[in-house]
Amino acid sequence: MLDKVGIYEFMAEPFHCDFSKRLFMGHLGNHLLNAADFHADHRGFGMTHLNPEHKTWVLSRLAIEMAEMPKEYARFNVETWIEGVMKYFTHRNFRVVDAMDEGKVYGYGRSVWAMINTDTRQPEDILAVKDGEVVKYVDADRPCPMAVPSRVKMSAAATLVRTIDTYYSDVDVNGHINSVKYIEHVLDLFGVDWYSGNTIKRLDVAYVAESHYGDKLNFYSEDQPGGSVCVRITKSSPGVEGEAEVCRCKVEFMGKR
Amino acid sequence: MLDKVGIYEFMAEPFHCDFSKRLFMGHLGNHLLNAADFHADHRGFGMTHLNPEHKTWVLSRLAIEMAEMPKEYARFNVETWIEGVMKYFTHRNFRVVDAMDEGKVYGYGRSVWAMINTDTRQPEDILAVKDGEVVKYVDADRPCPMAVPSRVKMSAAATLVRTIDTYYSDVDVNGHINSVKYIEHVLDLFGVDWYSGNTIKRLDVAYVAESHYGDKLNFYSEDQPGGSVCVRITKSSPGVEGEAEVCRCKVEFMGKR
Repeated sequence: MLDKVGIYEFMAEPFHCDFSKRLFMGHLGNHLLNAADFHADHRGFGMTHLNPEHKTWVLSRLAIEMAEMPKEYARFNVETWIEGVMKYFTHRNFRVVDAMDEGKVYGYGRSVWAMINTDTRQPEDILAVKDGEVVKYVDADRPCPMAVPSRVKMSAAATLVRTIDTYYSDVDVNGHINSVKYIEHVLDLFGVDWYSGNTIKRLDVAYVAESHYGDKLNFYSEDQPGGSVCVRITKSSPGVEGEAEVCRCKVEFMGKR
Repeated sequence: MLDKVGIYEFMAEPFHCDFSKRLFMGHLGNHLLNAADFHADHRGFGMTHLNPEHKTWVLSRLAIEMAEMPKEYARFNVETWIEGVMKYFTHRNFRVVDAMDEGKVYGYGRSVWAMINTDTRQPEDILAVKDGEVVKYVDADRPCPMAVPSRVKMSAAATLVRTIDTYYSDVDVNGHINSVKYIEHVLDLFGVDWYSGNTIKRLDVAYVAESHYGDKLNFYSEDQPGGSVCVRITKSSPGVEGEAEVCRCKVEFMGKR
């Protein structure tokens, strides 16, 4: 049996770094999702196994809390493991450490995944896959010192701050708008001037529904007590009246020293 | 002395693939630029050596011609070498092959790079760096069976088809709009329906000037005889009247079988 923890090395590629020469949060999110995918696949419950059974993993929550972002050219490891499994959800955690010096921890992540049937889009019993083999890999004791993903509560008072079109490059292999693109679009609501003085301490994303090519995405922003900002994304789909919620994000910043 | 050819392995990560489960051209472009950066750096004439000397490489032309795009999860090698060096320009070529089967060639690339002084933005003599050591690495005979990068000639009759804002995530470590983003924005002028029936055979990009955060980018499109499409990108900078050309692209498509 493979280790409960999977370790995957990545590099903060120069074109994946922002003007401050630190990895973009969106690209870090992509690396976490890749690590999750590789970890599940190598252990027999990834997409390669699930897709022929008309099942797939769906990302429901993602939270990332960083002490520091990897610098340009830094090699870092994403460690990932399953903290717990229930019938309809798994909790998967992440730790991001320097590849050369495990004592240097960049940050942590937490995620919640559902399994659905790709024909009916209805939830599937995770514990029914391979007689619940996934349970063997649960490591409930490994520390992940960050709060669980937030539901991202928002009031109806949030203000529409931007509406964007979706294009070819926003669409993923499943025909949906790529989960990481929402993160990029939300973080693009803040300007380079803002990022000159502030860095992202924590990001929470609650994925609510899928959006598709041709949908317009509307961004509603609401400042929170304590200086964080919540953003609700809704979609306006062609030929459909009104808007439907797609996801909610919460961004906590910290001032740069 | 290191080999003249540098070989770098990449994977067509799932979130870097389009709805047809093939690597996005923009991400392939990013991999080529990474390979160029690693190749130069390992041989002593990369950014690590140049930046302290107030010099940098600037991409002037990029052309990519693909028989096929790597499929989701495919591991492929980007081979890169210098075809020729002149005082102010180097010609660097690429070959993209399957990492498991070198006989499977996905395609080729060609690029032209200038060296500039980062203070004056004026051209620097490439052959003056380390007494022209780069010349030792020139491999003029290695085949690259594709036409040289096009200047991308366009008439004044091109039509304005889109104007977009630039955001935080468009800006690279040099404070400029990322070279790969232009590719993505140009390819986003075509819809998912178009890509369902057509795939990109060849892309030429002629980089003319840099654009910056806050610039608006205007896309002017012109259909060419033979079915290719040329796109001129101009920038409208805050407080500056008129538009300035930033780059020109030519996209050649082929029908999917």
